[in-house]
Amino acid sequence: MRMYDIIRKKRDRVALTPEEIRFFVQGVASGEIPDYQASALCMAIYLNGASDEETVALTGEMVHSGAVMDWSDIPGRKVDKHSTGGVGDKTSLILAPIAAAAGVVVPMVSGRGLGHTGGTLDKLESIPGFDVRLSAERFREVLKTCKLVLAGQTAELAPADRKLYALRDVTATVESIPLIASSILSKKLAEGIDALVLDVKVGSGAFMKKPSDALRLARTLVAIGRSQGKQMVALLTDMDQPLGTHVGNSLEVIESVNVLRGQVENDLSELSFELAAHMLVLGQVAATLSQARRRVRELVQKGAALKKFQEVVAAQGGDALALEDFSRLPAAKRTEVVAAPARGFVQRIQAEEVGISAMLLGAGRARAEDPIDHGAGIVLHRKVGDAVEEGAPLATLYFNDAAHRDEARARLFSAYTLGAQPPPRGKLIRRIIS
Amino acid sequence: MRMYDIIRKKRDRVALTPEEIRFFVQGVASGEIPDYQASALCMAIYLNGASDEETVALTGEMVHSGAVMDWSDIPGRKVDKHSTGGVGDKTSLILAPIAAAAGVVVPMVSGRGLGHTGGTLDKLESIPGFDVRLSAERFREVLKTCKLVLAGQTAELAPADRKLYALRDVTATVESIPLIASSILSKKLAEGIDALVLDVKVGSGAFMKKPSDALRLARTLVAIGRSQGKQMVALLTDMDQPLGTHVGNSLEVIESVNVLRGQVENDLSELSFELAAHMLVLGQVAATLSQARRRVRELVQKGAALKKFQEVVAAQGGDALALEDFSRLPAAKRTEVVAAPARGFVQRIQAEEVGISAMLLGAGRARAEDPIDHGAGIVLHRKVGDAVEEGAPLATLYFNDAAHRDEARARLFSAYTLGAQPPPRGKLIRRIIS
Repeated sequence: MRMYDIIRKKRDRVALTPEEIRFFVQGVASGEIPDYQASALCMAIYLNGASDEETVALTGEMVHSGAVMDWSDIPGRKVDKHSTGGVGDKTSLILAPIAAAAGVVVPMVSGRGLGHTGGTLDKLESIPGFDVRLSAERFREVLKTCKLVLAGQTAELAPADRKLYALRDVTATVESIPLIASSILSKKLAEGIDALVLDVKVGSGAFMKKPSDALRLARTLVAIGRSQGKQMVALLTDMDQPLGTHVGNSLEVIESVNVLRGQVENDLSELSFELAAHMLVLGQVAATLSQARRRVRELVQKGAALKKFQEVVAAQGGDALALEDFSRLPAAKRTEVVAAPARGFVQRIQAEEVGISAMLLGAGRARAEDPIDHGAGIVLHRKVGDAVEEGAPLATLYFNDAAHRDEARARLFSAYTLGAQPPPRGKLIRRIIS
Repeated sequence: MRMYDIIRKKRDRVALTPEEIRFFVQGVASGEIPDYQASALCMAIYLNGASDEETVALTGEMVHSGAVMDWSDIPGRKVDKHSTGGVGDKTSLILAPIAAAAGVVVPMVSGRGLGHTGGTLDKLESIPGFDVRLSAERFREVLKTCKLVLAGQTAELAPADRKLYALRDVTATVESIPLIASSILSKKLAEGIDALVLDVKVGSGAFMKKPSDALRLARTLVAIGRSQGKQMVALLTDMDQPLGTHVGNSLEVIESVNVLRGQVENDLSELSFELAAHMLVLGQVAATLSQARRRVRELVQKGAALKKFQEVVAAQGGDALALEDFSRLPAAKRTEVVAAPARGFVQRIQAEEVGISAMLLGAGRARAEDPIDHGAGIVLHRKVGDAVEEGAPLATLYFNDAAHRDEARARLFSAYTLGAQPPPRGKLIRRIIS
């Protein structure tokens, strides 16, 4: 078997056999296939697509390029959530403790932020002492004790995916549904879960700008996951504006804790609770979705969810008291208010621009190797549909380093569009594929 | 400017600007653009195409990635021929001496064989002592003295093309019309010629199997060449069966000399003379094509063309006497006849299979670094349309190393298709684009 022939087949729109896909993935993992051949194949897949059968094979081979976790000694259903990423998306910090408090086992593996999107690991690391780099042994101990663990991908999980993703990232071949689906699922399936809730974002701040693309991705993910024997539910959710009000690492921890305290009722709490409810159903701790929704509210009201979050923070070396006393979290020394230039109603808030603005303030990374400032970020005081008076605050910038403050302010300002009439109300959860 | 954005544009079918194409070609030449990005762009060009404007820019940048030869001190029009390659295609060895004998200046830069196709340099090197690796200085001296030089590409000519071609060769991105056209023309334009005759092969043994693809390539080549101020003529010619009867390096020298002696009248002589006639017209040593055809015949009959060939062989250190006494050429020690299994008419001879058969006998290379046996090859005793009796010889294999003889014989045997009736007569020269 030759990589040349595999590239040529895909170039000519001929479906690849499972053996050819195995040869490719193993060759990428071992380094025997040079990057220039792998990138040529990725571009051919990007432009010519891949069937569900090919995507299943690709996913399976990527899973088996590394270790697959086995939690059979821990009782209970193992359920995780995956989001395709957005701005202000901190649902993991809320739904994971809720699901675990309800008795679902949540072995959650997350990533870091890049560009305009944040990463769960970066947010967690803003809690002093919190360790996301767990050994396989420590990962198991925390999961066994807390029913929950929040950590980063180890080198053993789907190594072929990690190599391939790095290559796709520099060859403009990321936004391909078969490649995205196999990349997401290979990591999640290697976690050894029974079921997965997917939050597929759609809108200007999402990876998938068009609803039709998002729907196609959601359906592919559900189909591939099921073919591997996993229970799958996908929610198509709005990312036309940032989720919640806080963007930036410690700021997002604060908003998440406030949701877990039951003090916030907004799009963030609505989506987090809904995703959590689906996890409870897949985790078989609730019989119906409405039962699950009631249980979620109850766990929040009783403080059980926040207590679970504090428990896992402590188990992973973090300062659990910081979730009660936010002054223990990293904070920005300087703030600046962006005011409304006129009265009116907020028509749009371009999520991508808000994300870049937060990145420029230090909250995110332009390149993977950049350091981040955990205290920096943005709090939005007005969201889409809200009325605002001239001169009233739209948002506050939080920063320590003012180097890019002017650009950040300009971007945030232009992210807002005001108008005379309230805009039509969009739906947060656009569709459920189950 | 970032290579990532250039890849993404072409991926999304957005035309590249001349500046972007310059950035790409210069980055390839300097090594600043990594292979994995260059190959991703090549695949995107393969699948999404490129406009004539983009192809012109690509060609121009590749020409200027290296030195451009200047023959202004040598009087006369400089004309070359380029063939897209086939099996038994030795027209260069015939038409170059004819054109030079007629007064056209022919600075011919050729390549080596790979896979089922042979290369002019390999054929010339079967003449003992013949040196194809000339310095720029020596190249000029030979051209000045003989009006003809037959050599290989130097490192100075279109270095970006050489790098890019090597990458395309291993990433299944060779057969793309814009990439082929820019590759061919960048080398030829760097030769400093005034005009070019193109022999675009079509058929089962050609690079372009479909007439429509061959026509598109021919038209692109002619358009791009003209945009660079060159006179261009393209002939679409048949490669459904090997050209002439001899396949293999010294065997092809022998057949070429026999044509130059006026002893052979077949498809090879017809095509060689016709291509030469076009060179005479473009070289402005004949006013019309019919005048040029008469002049070509005359130069052959008078022995002037063969004399010119001997002259250049001697000038490049080769044994000119070998063109009179073929026993001075390398020869195979063993021969084997492939006989007809039944009486009938030859319907088809798959050129590609004949080429691979010759390669297996040692005449060609499976990989660029393989050595070749200049004496090995095949002589076809029957061509398409010929009648044959059961047991009569179809072809003779020539070889020194019998390692792959069985496979070579089997492939040659299966390359022939016999039938009861004479097949319809195909046209050798299918179309002229001028």
